[in-house]
Amino acid sequence: MKKFINKPENVVTEMLEGFAAAHPNVIYSGKDTEVIYRRQMDPGKVGLVSGGGAGHEPAHAGYVGRGMLDAAVSGNVFASPSPDRILYALHKVDTGAGVLLIVKNYSGDVMNFQMAGELARREGISVESVIVRDDVAVEDSTYTTGRRGIAGTVFVHKISGGAAMKGKDLLEVKKIAEKAATNVRSMGMALSGCTLPGVGQKGFQLGEDELELGMGIHGEPGIYHGKITDVQNLVGKLMGYLMKDLDYTKSETAVMVNGLGGTPLMELYIVFWEVKKYLEGAGIGIYKAYVGNYMTSLEMAGCSVSLLKLDEELKTYLDMDTEVSIWK
Amino acid sequence: MKKFINKPENVVTEMLEGFAAAHPNVIYSGKDTEVIYRRQMDPGKVGLVSGGGAGHEPAHAGYVGRGMLDAAVSGNVFASPSPDRILYALHKVDTGAGVLLIVKNYSGDVMNFQMAGELARREGISVESVIVRDDVAVEDSTYTTGRRGIAGTVFVHKISGGAAMKGKDLLEVKKIAEKAATNVRSMGMALSGCTLPGVGQKGFQLGEDELELGMGIHGEPGIYHGKITDVQNLVGKLMGYLMKDLDYTKSETAVMVNGLGGTPLMELYIVFWEVKKYLEGAGIGIYKAYVGNYMTSLEMAGCSVSLLKLDEELKTYLDMDTEVSIWK
Repeated sequence: MKKFINKPENVVTEMLEGFAAAHPNVIYSGKDTEVIYRRQMDPGKVGLVSGGGAGHEPAHAGYVGRGMLDAAVSGNVFASPSPDRILYALHKVDTGAGVLLIVKNYSGDVMNFQMAGELARREGISVESVIVRDDVAVEDSTYTTGRRGIAGTVFVHKISGGAAMKGKDLLEVKKIAEKAATNVRSMGMALSGCTLPGVGQKGFQLGEDELELGMGIHGEPGIYHGKITDVQNLVGKLMGYLMKDLDYTKSETAVMVNGLGGTPLMELYIVFWEVKKYLEGAGIGIYKAYVGNYMTSLEMAGCSVSLLKLDEELKTYLDMDTEVSIWK
Repeated sequence: MKKFINKPENVVTEMLEGFAAAHPNVIYSGKDTEVIYRRQMDPGKVGLVSGGGAGHEPAHAGYVGRGMLDAAVSGNVFASPSPDRILYALHKVDTGAGVLLIVKNYSGDVMNFQMAGELARREGISVESVIVRDDVAVEDSTYTTGRRGIAGTVFVHKISGGAAMKGKDLLEVKKIAEKAATNVRSMGMALSGCTLPGVGQKGFQLGEDELELGMGIHGEPGIYHGKITDVQNLVGKLMGYLMKDLDYTKSETAVMVNGLGGTPLMELYIVFWEVKKYLEGAGIGIYKAYVGNYMTSLEMAGCSVSLLKLDEELKTYLDMDTEVSIWK
């Protein structure tokens, strides 16, 4: 295992210390809670909290900032944060207008965010949640009942953030977040597994000419394991799964080509170019494109494509300003 | 070789097609010239052109936009762009105020940018250039006489961009760019080599527990090749070289922890945390921090640290707005 780390058991704490030191608009809560939250909340605005296991950076701490999340809760690497950490974040962000929890669909995350929400409700805080299940690859998976939540979740962060900034109330923000979650589909493909700090070997192995289509961001099994081909062919396969699952005909879309950590930007732009040509051929417009590392899986080589079907309301919130530097 | 590509000989063209399709504020000139330039120039502003071999994305196309570069010229992977490509970019960006060329110190780049500048001058365009030599690791290298230019160059892009936007004339912009180039030092460390598209093997090999300190962004040899240790120790070594080379005492600095393509953001933030502690211990302030992939080497696992010594003038231009989404 070759990584720039000190002790494996300290990676989350040291990363978040570094994160907060680099981004003066946020505060790091410390190692007992592992929460990154905004230095200044907006009184009367619905609070937005997301999070999950570490190892997916910039998700989720990287999306904390005006116009997106108010706090992100981190678990250990690939492990859900405990309810007390999530409750800590809820306390930090609630200014009276209630809090929306944005949760990727993993059993541990769903359970712990629900439990924290219940505890907060007993204290009189209004809490709602939206669960994102954008990965079309498989029903049920290693850590999931139903579909997994992956990079499309970042669109839900952005759109919820816009709606909350516009002064929508908790139930309205929830409704808009659910529309975004309902309208987004994603799927990934990997050229390599990744190695957890402290574990000596990769989560899964691929041969020198092999690729896995539809794997999860923790290395969960996908739907196709075989020879790598040219990217036009791979994108065609992947897009076929997305198209089969939602009617994008004549829609405008936001497209995200998301690197999984170990794939250079050069390849992500080549993937995007194939996605663009595919969509043009299908008569589907691209309103905005996002190419980069948005939700990673440590140093996994691979990428995912997310496709968000837009309407005027979603466009408005997607376009709103945010101070989050990873977004644009 | 596992990459998301079609044919190795088309990677630059397809990447730049994808880049321009994702960023509507720029235009791609086509495969004969491989230039990305701003859709709308600012009349009367000094033009800024940079570039070099491909494989360092987001450098350089990713820095084209209002407030930074006006055009970026790409060669093939790790190969300098030819003078005619650079001349094409010069024609695109000159609006009468002249053009500054920002060149990383590699013999091929220096020669070709100089030749293009000379050709443009004969046509009556005012051209100046600044050469960046920020890598303190070695004097002279595989492709370089003197020191290599690496990620610190992006600071020169940003600061020149700010000065040009402020309406400074060509010689003033050059002077400010030279101050930035004089005040920045960088050094890298790698955990793996990288593989050029079309080449079957990595540019250099490292054992399972080995690291190379001071290698170049094309895999040029560094100054130390040995066992990997904890990141505190590695950062201490690397910072020692930077400190020895320039007096940062009591200065404020801009710090860049730059990923080389295959290293996850988690590790970059841990590196930054160690850099911050090191600088605090030395009584050196951090004015702004940049952590991410700014100048890569395909999928190389590794990072570099750049340290820019600031004064009020440099701060002003560093802080100015830019539409470049990779910057903040």
